[in-house]
Amino acid sequence: MRRPTIVDIAKAAGVSKGAVSYALNGRPGVSDATRRRILDIAEQLGWAPSSAARALSDGRAGAIGMVVDRPAKTLAAEPFFMRLIGGIQFELDGSPVSLMLRSADDRDVEMATYQRWHAERRVDGVLLVDLRRDDPRLSFVKGLGLPAVVIGGPEHTQGLPCAWTDDSNAMGEVVRYLASLGHRRIARVAGPAEFVHTEVRSHAFARVAEEVGLVHAEVIHADYFDSQAAEITRALLSGPNPPSALVFDNDLMAVAALGVAQEMGVAVPDRLSIVAWDDSMICQAIRPALTAVGREVTQHGRIAASLLLEVIEGGVPRSKQTPRSRLIPRASTGPAAF
Amino acid sequence: MRRPTIVDIAKAAGVSKGAVSYALNGRPGVSDATRRRILDIAEQLGWAPSSAARALSDGRAGAIGMVVDRPAKTLAAEPFFMRLIGGIQFELDGSPVSLMLRSADDRDVEMATYQRWHAERRVDGVLLVDLRRDDPRLSFVKGLGLPAVVIGGPEHTQGLPCAWTDDSNAMGEVVRYLASLGHRRIARVAGPAEFVHTEVRSHAFARVAEEVGLVHAEVIHADYFDSQAAEITRALLSGPNPPSALVFDNDLMAVAALGVAQEMGVAVPDRLSIVAWDDSMICQAIRPALTAVGREVTQHGRIAASLLLEVIEGGVPRSKQTPRSRLIPRASTGPAAF
Repeated sequence: MRRPTIVDIAKAAGVSKGAVSYALNGRPGVSDATRRRILDIAEQLGWAPSSAARALSDGRAGAIGMVVDRPAKTLAAEPFFMRLIGGIQFELDGSPVSLMLRSADDRDVEMATYQRWHAERRVDGVLLVDLRRDDPRLSFVKGLGLPAVVIGGPEHTQGLPCAWTDDSNAMGEVVRYLASLGHRRIARVAGPAEFVHTEVRSHAFARVAEEVGLVHAEVIHADYFDSQAAEITRALLSGPNPPSALVFDNDLMAVAALGVAQEMGVAVPDRLSIVAWDDSMICQAIRPALTAVGREVTQHGRIAASLLLEVIEGGVPRSKQTPRSRLIPRASTGPAAF
Repeated sequence: MRRPTIVDIAKAAGVSKGAVSYALNGRPGVSDATRRRILDIAEQLGWAPSSAARALSDGRAGAIGMVVDRPAKTLAAEPFFMRLIGGIQFELDGSPVSLMLRSADDRDVEMATYQRWHAERRVDGVLLVDLRRDDPRLSFVKGLGLPAVVIGGPEHTQGLPCAWTDDSNAMGEVVRYLASLGHRRIARVAGPAEFVHTEVRSHAFARVAEEVGLVHAEVIHADYFDSQAAEITRALLSGPNPPSALVFDNDLMAVAALGVAQEMGVAVPDRLSIVAWDDSMICQAIRPALTAVGREVTQHGRIAASLLLEVIEGGVPRSKQTPRSRLIPRASTGPAAF
C-alpha cells in the first residue's frame, strides 16, 4: 500500500496543499475548524511520519536553542530564568518555532551541545546567556556558522548581536541612593566573578563607591543560591565592623539575607538596609518589602528572541537595549543608624 | 577537498572514534580536557555539519517535547511550570537529551505541533500537561506512535503512563481543617473546569463539604492569573453573605486575594482565612504567610521525565505517584469569626 502524501490529504479534505501544510505545521493561515478536519483526515489516512519528514521540511529546524550553563536546580529556583524563558516563549507564540532548552553546568558540554544541535539541524540559532570575558563560546558558534544572539553585553560580544541592559547606571543609582541615606559601609553579594554582567556591576559599584566616598565597599562573590547568601550574610553581620547596607545580585539571595537578619535580631531597615536585583513578585510580597532594581526581564527575553529570529530570517544582525532598569525603593532600605 | 569525518578527528586527536562521538554528542565518557581537545581539533579540521549529521545520528532526536497549552505569559508568571521545567531539566542533566518547549493556547495547534515534531523527528517523546476528560491529544499521540507520558491522572489517561499526585486527599484535608476551625461558608477559586486535576479537586471539595456539613461551598472557575482572582475575591467579599475562608488552586491567585483583603480592610486570618495550592517561596515570604498545599512539583517533573525516558528506551510504560501533597498551615488561616 502506497503511503499517503500531502496531496492525498489535500484531495480528501478538499483544500489546497498549502492549507494542509499550514495545518500540519501548526502555522496560522487556516481556520481552527479546517485545521482540525485536516488533522483528522491525515490521521485517518494513516499519514506516516517518514513521508511527512520529506514533505514538510523547509530546511529549518523550527527551533531556537538555549543552554543554561548553571546548576540544574537554577531553572526551578531562579525567577530570572523563568521570566526570560516566558518572554522568549511569548515572542515565539503564534509562530511554529519552539525553544530547545538544556541545562549543562560545564562549558565544554555546552559547546558540544551547540555543535550537535547545529550538526543535526536541531536548532536554527541559539541564545547565549551568562556572557564571560573572552568567552570561547562566541568564536565557537561563529565557527559553526550557527546564528546566535547574546543575552548580555554590549561589550565582549565579539561582534555578535545582543540584547543588553545598562546595569552600570542602575548600580550607580543604588550606591548613590544608599550613600544619600548615610550608609558608609556597604557590602555587595555578587554573582560569579567570571560573568560580564557581574563585572559591569562590580566596576560601577567600585567607581561610584569612590565617588561618594564610602569608608568600606566590599564585593563577595556567590552562586546566586540562598544557602550561600545566608552564610555570607551571617559572616558579615557577625564581623567586627558589619556593613549597614547589603546589595544582592539576585532576589533569591536578598530574601535569604532578610531571613538571616531576622534570625539574628538585626532590624531591617533600622540597622540593616537590603537591596535586591531583579525585582520580582517575591520582593513585593515579602515583609519588609525589598527595595530592588527592576529589570524588564520578560521584555528582555522577547527582544533577544526577536533579534535571533531576524538573523535566522537573513536579516542584518543588530543589537538592542531593553528599557532602562529602575531602582524601586521599598521598606527594606532606610537611613543608616551608624 | 574531502570533508573531514569522525575518523579523521579521532586520528588527529589520538583517541577512539567512540571518544570523538561522546565528545561531539556532549555525552559523558570522556574527560573535560579530552572533550575540549577533540572539539578544538574538530573545529580546526573544519568538521562540517552535514557530515556530522550522518556521522552522529543514532536515529534519536535527543529531545523530549512539552507544549504548554496556556497563555504565553503563563511560563513567566506561574511558579508551578518553572518548578516542573526545573525538575525535568534536573532529570535530563548529564544526559544529552534536551527539552523542546512551546506554548500554544490552542489544542489544535498543540496537536499539529506533536505531529510535526514527530514527523520531522524533533522529539523522541512528549510530556502532556493539563489533562482533560476525553482528551483528544491522547489518542492523537498514540495514533502517531509518539511515546508520551501524562503529567496528571491517574484517571482519564486512556492507558498512557502518567506521573500523578493525589489531589483528592489533599483537598479533603483542606476542607476538614477549615471546618474544624469553624468555617461554614467556604469558596474555592479553581482553575479551568475542563482540566481533570480541577475536576478531581472539585469532587473532593464537594464530597467533604457535604461530609462535614458546610452551609455553603461554592466553586468559581478562574484562569490562574492574579487579575481574575482579584476580581472574584472582591465580588465575594462584597456580597451579602461573604465566605469566611477561600481556597485557591494556585499561589498567584491566593497572593492576589490577600492583596484584595488588605485593600478592603478585611483582616487575614481574623475575618478571612486563605489557603493556597502549591506551596512556593512566595507563600512563605508573604505576610501573613500563606497556608498552602505543598506538592513536590520539582520531583513531579523529574519523575515524569524519567518515565518518558524509560518508554523511549523501550521500557514497559509505567505510571508513578509523586510523594503525597501536604497541608502546611501558616498565618493566613485561623478560627472563623462568624
